[in-house]
Amino acid sequence: MISIADIQQAAERIAPFVRMTPLIRLEALDEHLGCQVYAKLENLQVTGSFKIRGAANAALRLSDEQRACGLVAASSGNHGKALAHVAKKLGTTATIVIPDTAPAVKVDAIAALGAAVVRSSVEERFERAAAIAAETGGTIIPPYDDERIMAGQGTIGLEIAEQLPDVDVVVTPVSGGGLLGGVSTAVKALLPNARVYGAEPATRPRWTESLKAGTRVTVPSHPTLADALVTLTPGELTFPVVQARVDGMVAVDEEALLRAARLLLTEGKILAEYSSAIGIAAVHEGLLSVRPEDKVCFVISGGSIGFAQIAQLA
Amino acid sequence: MISIADIQQAAERIAPFVRMTPLIRLEALDEHLGCQVYAKLENLQVTGSFKIRGAANAALRLSDEQRACGLVAASSGNHGKALAHVAKKLGTTATIVIPDTAPAVKVDAIAALGAAVVRSSVEERFERAAAIAAETGGTIIPPYDDERIMAGQGTIGLEIAEQLPDVDVVVTPVSGGGLLGGVSTAVKALLPNARVYGAEPATRPRWTESLKAGTRVTVPSHPTLADALVTLTPGELTFPVVQARVDGMVAVDEEALLRAARLLLTEGKILAEYSSAIGIAAVHEGLLSVRPEDKVCFVISGGSIGFAQIAQLA
Repeated sequence: MISIADIQQAAERIAPFVRMTPLIRLEALDEHLGCQVYAKLENLQVTGSFKIRGAANAALRLSDEQRACGLVAASSGNHGKALAHVAKKLGTTATIVIPDTAPAVKVDAIAALGAAVVRSSVEERFERAAAIAAETGGTIIPPYDDERIMAGQGTIGLEIAEQLPDVDVVVTPVSGGGLLGGVSTAVKALLPNARVYGAEPATRPRWTESLKAGTRVTVPSHPTLADALVTLTPGELTFPVVQARVDGMVAVDEEALLRAARLLLTEGKILAEYSSAIGIAAVHEGLLSVRPEDKVCFVISGGSIGFAQIAQLA
Repeated sequence: MISIADIQQAAERIAPFVRMTPLIRLEALDEHLGCQVYAKLENLQVTGSFKIRGAANAALRLSDEQRACGLVAASSGNHGKALAHVAKKLGTTATIVIPDTAPAVKVDAIAALGAAVVRSSVEERFERAAAIAAETGGTIIPPYDDERIMAGQGTIGLEIAEQLPDVDVVVTPVSGGGLLGGVSTAVKALLPNARVYGAEPATRPRWTESLKAGTRVTVPSHPTLADALVTLTPGELTFPVVQARVDGMVAVDEEALLRAARLLLTEGKILAEYSSAIGIAAVHEGLLSVRPEDKVCFVISGGSIGFAQIAQLA
């Protein structure tokens, strides 16, 4: 399992590629959520999401020769965008396999960064990426099930511990578990009294079911508005980390997610993708119990949202 | 003219009514604006704009008897909303005269706070408010041309000096001059090397023309997207303060304003009313010269924006 040292080394390695994003107080949401609300704004991160942290860490650990043959990824969008950016910065190429569920805004952004884009179904995307890597000699940078990725995403936890050392609760969205595995590792190491929770779509409750079963479970592919949280099975490497270090997992239904996204935009004045509002939805619906004096930090994971989706919030 | 002491006293007086809003780094806008971008988020203030600061300061300086007879204001929306909130908190009534140019979202918000709403033309709004005050015995709380109001708005300058003491440039939207007069007084007193600029709609360049003429000039009533910046003449009390303490004034055309509002939402991930983007527009269009190393803080004055306007940004 990754350790706090892995995350601290990642922070040093990726520093020239990422921003220390703002962690702000969002008092306007306090009365809605029943706690003291804080938001870690990874929607303001380079390429618009936290994914650059893991992508940069993984790419920087390759040899020069490996890097020169290009980077390949299967991604619901944000990881692909991050990797395209990293490849460009490092002077190499990126090929990104994108599932059909990803919104056009993400696909366009990846193409604009100079990467080759290949469309695929959600289920076949990893096989497709493997075939491309085999053909081209490129290296696959996985979106989450990788210790370098988890360590990179964990640098968010380092920043939270620095920016809000008396935080009581941290809530992150969860899909494959890279973000939650990394953040929980950092937060639990530095702030042992803080609680860390994950929130996932109730239509794809792979973590809730896997944690209950004590083993990785694959769930059916039902639709969700949370287009960055579409993974069907917890990662092999992320599962034991989340199992050991996370205090709880909640599954959020689609209506609650939409309400929370609306709240974040209209009251919080923050533009983020639907997936980023899932933690707020969890507290708003009473799925996570918090006290009025609790300082609760929500990781706002990304800002890739199209105008059609913004209009849906009206 | 108001002094830094007036503002410091106001800060103490209004503390229970207002938030110290976040001042965040917005690196995503650096490449667009050619400087180090910071934003003071008054769109996250109580009632959604900076106006609560002045309104609370003015209302708290009335006698108990004056307050009991009710508060009256003419306002393009945000001042009215702030005053309605203050009246409710203080257990008295508010009557708000709103110009026809104000968007429905602001009118609805005022009514929802329990205030009486009266519609009027922009030109007649102050006479209308005076008539209502005379009839009811209520006290008019002016939106800007008042030292208590200026001192209240100036508390934003105190916070900027505390949150970003090495700021090089502060840019605020300007309409009647309460915000700019207050902020420039605080910033110049505490950070004498910082520059302070105002930005106004080019369709209503009352400040640009008045400062050039050396006296208050009234401009014709042309339309602007900046519905919070509709004043036609600088205030009598605000004019000498702005004249003495502000480093420059720029007039921004409507297309530039729309581009900046889009930039703030799509790249800055901040939801604000159009008027709040006018300072960003000024720098984006090269109307204010800034250097790449300059720390430039934009006062994001309010967040009252309807979904029709958000859609217009698409």
